[in-house]
Amino acid sequence: MYCFINGNILPVEEAKIGITDIGLLRSYAVFDYMRTYNGKPFGFEDYIVRFRNSAESLRLQLNYTDEEIKSTIIRLVEKSNVKEAGVRLLLTGGYSSDSISFDNPNFIIVIEKLPVYPSSYYQHGVKLITDEFQRAVAGSKTTDYLNAIKLEPIKKEKGAFDILYHKNNLVLEVARNNIFFFKNNTLITPKDDILKGITRKHVLLLAKDHFKIEERAVSVSEMWDMDEVFLTGTSKKIIPVVQIDEQHFSNGKPGANTKKLMEVFDVFVNNY
Amino acid sequence: MYCFINGNILPVEEAKIGITDIGLLRSYAVFDYMRTYNGKPFGFEDYIVRFRNSAESLRLQLNYTDEEIKSTIIRLVEKSNVKEAGVRLLLTGGYSSDSISFDNPNFIIVIEKLPVYPSSYYQHGVKLITDEFQRAVAGSKTTDYLNAIKLEPIKKEKGAFDILYHKNNLVLEVARNNIFFFKNNTLITPKDDILKGITRKHVLLLAKDHFKIEERAVSVSEMWDMDEVFLTGTSKKIIPVVQIDEQHFSNGKPGANTKKLMEVFDVFVNNY
Repeated sequence: MYCFINGNILPVEEAKIGITDIGLLRSYAVFDYMRTYNGKPFGFEDYIVRFRNSAESLRLQLNYTDEEIKSTIIRLVEKSNVKEAGVRLLLTGGYSSDSISFDNPNFIIVIEKLPVYPSSYYQHGVKLITDEFQRAVAGSKTTDYLNAIKLEPIKKEKGAFDILYHKNNLVLEVARNNIFFFKNNTLITPKDDILKGITRKHVLLLAKDHFKIEERAVSVSEMWDMDEVFLTGTSKKIIPVVQIDEQHFSNGKPGANTKKLMEVFDVFVNNY
Repeated sequence: MYCFINGNILPVEEAKIGITDIGLLRSYAVFDYMRTYNGKPFGFEDYIVRFRNSAESLRLQLNYTDEEIKSTIIRLVEKSNVKEAGVRLLLTGGYSSDSISFDNPNFIIVIEKLPVYPSSYYQHGVKLITDEFQRAVAGSKTTDYLNAIKLEPIKKEKGAFDILYHKNNLVLEVARNNIFFFKNNTLITPKDDILKGITRKHVLLLAKDHFKIEERAVSVSEMWDMDEVFLTGTSKKIIPVVQIDEQHFSNGKPGANTKKLMEVFDVFVNNY
């Protein structure tokens, strides 16, 4: 797999960054993650807009045009000799002499093996566990995953697929994904203090021909009363959720509306 | 300045880390920061215990003994040809193939120029601004400084020296330091959900011969009624605080009790 780092293309395992990078010393960095379908970066325009918004929220300059970034991604994917791949963009504050100030960001593009999830996740659904937490810059895709990685052993111990965050009694997001609910055939998903996924966006667009949609605050107590639950993510697409903590949803099986949306989404990306 | 990275000693500007380090990709890292007085690492035993506790809280293995670390620090300080220096220890989760799992931490020691603060800060005191925030792993010294670095422009705009965090109406800590108050000659400092500073510890030990001490929760509303305020930190020692947001303390000048503690602390470290 190949990567791009400040203008140079080289194998990922040879790419290095200086130890005074403020992304490393102070967690001051944004990233984004897209994937290819049929060898093409899917939804590039959406991902790059979000990446630029994240960068701007931390006052980080991205000194490359969309066209330069897109052509670099295509070149890296070809050079890495993979058809379907994950593509990580990372922009750190750059080197800092005092661990506070910075002025010259480091920009990295990494081609990664696309994670493959067991088909049983899609057929039978997964379990989430809840945790009270909100990321420091909730609307931006920063590298702020300390809490999520710290909870990995608890996740494994409980047999959970991922962690659902809530704060001030409101449901927010899964550690790396967005959450959706069905109640009486209405599709409901949280709106504020979350990272708005690109898959979330496509699901909302595709769903509007089939369901009533509500983007709004969802309280934790309301969540327990939902009919169906699923999560969305770039590499995961739509995965049904059949259990949150000790509570089962849709009789412990993927719900009919969720299955419908999974079909619609698959048709959409397979035609990309 | 020299550094140590996984067994190798080299100039700081030549030290690099691979881009798949989970400290960089997911902010999964702990650090600590000590300084020398008279060329010797001050309070090494306290800092190394805290560093090991931070590492343990993130399940990070530190594969070096205290003696190895101490002798490496002394060697690096000598090689860097500085008398007084800052010493940063950094332990990341190490390289990760999936940005989640890890098993071989990267350990780094960096010798840094010790920051020098203007004498006016000590003579006239500084201003803090408040922000509602609590770090994700509050008792550990992680690299979770995204919020603090993000607020730098606001800090500068308001002419503030640093940011005082509070959460759920309780005063916590300054972004990089601990906070203390005097009320009716009693020294009061927050106790929970903070990073317990080594300078904080020494100040509490030194103060107990002179003042009544209370380590306990301090509400934001109680804070506004305090007589004197100061902050403590490894490189800053004791700095008087004369303003928080729009409120002035001790008539806008360092208070008498604070000045007394500053003298006692200086005598203590100069005899180290």
